[in-house]
Amino acid sequence: MSKDKEKQFVKEITPQSEDFSRWYIDVIKKADLMSYSPVRGCIVFKPDSYEIWELCQKHLDARFKETGHRNAYFPLFIPESFFQKEKEHVEGFNPELPWVTEAGGEKLEERLAIRPTSETMIGHMYSEWINSYRDLPMLINQWANVVRWEKRTQPFLRTSEFLWQEGHTAHEDEADARRETMQMLEIYREFVEGVLAIPVIMGQKTPSEKFAGAVDTYSIEAMMKDGKAVQAGTSHYLGTNFAVAFDIKYLNRENTHTFCHTTSWGVSTRLIGALIMVHGDDRGLVLPPKVAPTQVVMIPVGPPKLREPVVARVKELNEALRQAGVRSKVDDDTNQSPGWKFNEYEMRGIPLRIEIGPRDMESGQAVIVSRVTGEKKIVTQENLTAEVQAMLEQVHQDMFEKAKQFREEHFTSVDTMDELNRFLEETKGFAYAGWCGSNACEEQVKEETGATSRNIPFEPAVTKTTCVCCGEAAKHTVVFGRAY
Amino acid sequence: MSKDKEKQFVKEITPQSEDFSRWYIDVIKKADLMSYSPVRGCIVFKPDSYEIWELCQKHLDARFKETGHRNAYFPLFIPESFFQKEKEHVEGFNPELPWVTEAGGEKLEERLAIRPTSETMIGHMYSEWINSYRDLPMLINQWANVVRWEKRTQPFLRTSEFLWQEGHTAHEDEADARRETMQMLEIYREFVEGVLAIPVIMGQKTPSEKFAGAVDTYSIEAMMKDGKAVQAGTSHYLGTNFAVAFDIKYLNRENTHTFCHTTSWGVSTRLIGALIMVHGDDRGLVLPPKVAPTQVVMIPVGPPKLREPVVARVKELNEALRQAGVRSKVDDDTNQSPGWKFNEYEMRGIPLRIEIGPRDMESGQAVIVSRVTGEKKIVTQENLTAEVQAMLEQVHQDMFEKAKQFREEHFTSVDTMDELNRFLEETKGFAYAGWCGSNACEEQVKEETGATSRNIPFEPAVTKTTCVCCGEAAKHTVVFGRAY
Repeated sequence: MSKDKEKQFVKEITPQSEDFSRWYIDVIKKADLMSYSPVRGCIVFKPDSYEIWELCQKHLDARFKETGHRNAYFPLFIPESFFQKEKEHVEGFNPELPWVTEAGGEKLEERLAIRPTSETMIGHMYSEWINSYRDLPMLINQWANVVRWEKRTQPFLRTSEFLWQEGHTAHEDEADARRETMQMLEIYREFVEGVLAIPVIMGQKTPSEKFAGAVDTYSIEAMMKDGKAVQAGTSHYLGTNFAVAFDIKYLNRENTHTFCHTTSWGVSTRLIGALIMVHGDDRGLVLPPKVAPTQVVMIPVGPPKLREPVVARVKELNEALRQAGVRSKVDDDTNQSPGWKFNEYEMRGIPLRIEIGPRDMESGQAVIVSRVTGEKKIVTQENLTAEVQAMLEQVHQDMFEKAKQFREEHFTSVDTMDELNRFLEETKGFAYAGWCGSNACEEQVKEETGATSRNIPFEPAVTKTTCVCCGEAAKHTVVFGRAY
Repeated sequence: MSKDKEKQFVKEITPQSEDFSRWYIDVIKKADLMSYSPVRGCIVFKPDSYEIWELCQKHLDARFKETGHRNAYFPLFIPESFFQKEKEHVEGFNPELPWVTEAGGEKLEERLAIRPTSETMIGHMYSEWINSYRDLPMLINQWANVVRWEKRTQPFLRTSEFLWQEGHTAHEDEADARRETMQMLEIYREFVEGVLAIPVIMGQKTPSEKFAGAVDTYSIEAMMKDGKAVQAGTSHYLGTNFAVAFDIKYLNRENTHTFCHTTSWGVSTRLIGALIMVHGDDRGLVLPPKVAPTQVVMIPVGPPKLREPVVARVKELNEALRQAGVRSKVDDDTNQSPGWKFNEYEMRGIPLRIEIGPRDMESGQAVIVSRVTGEKKIVTQENLTAEVQAMLEQVHQDMFEKAKQFREEHFTSVDTMDELNRFLEETKGFAYAGWCGSNACEEQVKEETGATSRNIPFEPAVTKTTCVCCGEAAKHTVVFGRAY
């Protein structure tokens, strides 16, 4: 491929440094991940992004089942009266609800909301299902679509309708419910770091940022390449709030009717947006190997007249990779040059490219190229499957380390509002800051800097002693950042 | 267990012969498959029924992918104007639509329907995505929830909201689209017969029974144990109807803009209702092994003082079964007697029960009992895994043969309306009858007998020459039956 052509190719994607938001939209459209739909704020998940979600589901679902949870399915519609039962919950979600008011040619007696989350419906059912301590813990998860009529939307990250899982559990006491809450947060951390290669900060949300109706909300927070935060997963200890609202009682071991302690926890298709914004670069997508729909693309190279045996061998090796469980494919289209293909599959973020030409046929070798580091490795065809498997693992590690390094370079500690403001404007990223614990100070930080408290990290690198806003003694060290 | 207790147990399920509808509700409630929800016509899929659906999904999804389809996800909401574009489609679905009229605190400019099916939304997107013959065939499937505001509902079989898959494909010409339509019908037949053990009749729907907007609709029809029919899957050749309505055009190989030919096809959670009504008996559920959440229950038997080594051995064997991919579990609860457990797991339809007691420990044997035939087989513990795997396959065959025999005993051929009426009242089931092809005759059969044309079978056992209604020459041999 000529330099001119290459320039033209790259030009189609806005550089991240020029306009990160445009880069994002350019990449997801060009890589064919989504289409805007005719319904405001709703996108179509095209096959490649949907397959990323399917692979996420597979990993998470296995972990949920290993930890004793089972899936179930609850109605999409929630009667209006249900929302009224938990005061904070209705205040939090009411502004975002779509309402079904007519059905089957008639006006409904009671409006039905499309679920934004299912604590109310599931709470109602749990009150029917749970009678005794023998029924506890009740450990159920739901894979479903939910709708929140957002004012500002962004593909994958914030859409009116999105896909997610919501776990809902009921327990005998606070200790068991809190243990569950933390267990699921840890499963999310393991998944997002170990499968999506995104480093996260675990911590507790401040009261103003917690889930509407929760006692305590915990989150994992990830940093995008523009320094902004995405909340990658949340786990809530709901106390007895929903149990009281929906009368979820059980006969305990002392034969007394007692309210359950409940939890809920979820991750959603916004993870697709996060992994694009954490790993992508100016050449396009960079997909984590464990959720890449195609992990390896094999491209025969060399002059046309020597092509036939090369293509045959490439197909053979591809078949061996597939047999070993590697998601590999061959592109032997003769209408496109190898150079065009290299760019195309780099743009699509395929973790590994394998090139084999006539000389490799003689030497019994192949060239493997890593999408994330650009490293080229010459390996023997005989060992190809093992080499590919090892290199996929290496790509995962490289991606994680690269993202972690980026985060470290965009992470600071501040003492004053000025410092915070300057950092957010110049370096961009996350900042540790002390916080006195008052809503007023948190609100003022938001107004003056656009940053919100991401969470109170379990393991802060520093301990702050004075509030960044009022200068009084700090109760907590908080991670602040601008967020999606 | 005493005879009295056993009687009492069985009494809780209404016998099928007494009231089949009550039997059905008794069974699904007692086996804990579902709960009624507070939203009219919507049920909760509890973990056991949801897991049946997950296992169905796994089988079907693999077949869809093997045949070149990929999954995607399209919006839940469909703008009202979309329905207006295909005349038959809007007439067919309008009476059943729920409408979102308000969202985010505002009245919407255009009402949004909750999807009853997605031909319109997907048609709209295909018109954007498809440009050239190189984009064809477009082979996409969606796993989703859909809503049809039904007047009369029945758990699993007909609920306001249900889960399904809908395949939507676009092709260059009629031949390719028709090939796809038949391929998917055949995949459904293989699945329903080969996985759910339900024999089906493949055929074409009459014009009055076809999908709203289709050129031709094909179905597989199954007979329930009350002789009534359930349409277990449908595949539609849509011609260019939706392509014209949504402008799905492509540049063909002769460089001319041409309309695509499209198809759609689906099966839903009503299959759960069908498998219960086909296989269940007066003792409760009988689950097909390939979709049973638990395939084997292992029950230690014998006096308490000899129990310990038995339980240890049973757990060991259970572990070996699970390692081999069998969904097996142990019930070693000492609060319930073996007799109670036998009844309980028979009621829950678990395909195989394994009993091991102290004497079996000495002889190195175990007793396997088939849920469907009651057959007891004594096997060596050493060969248990292989024996169980073979017996699960046998149970599948037995269930299929039993269902087929029932259908043959409830299948006749009639020449007159009187004969048809008498058969439907006395024997119940399906009847071959000649049909002249007029809507009037089909309508009259429905009014006088309550039976509808199920389909025009591809392979009728007999060929009828005169119309059962008007006595004129028959154009088709049709299967008539009362339907859910």
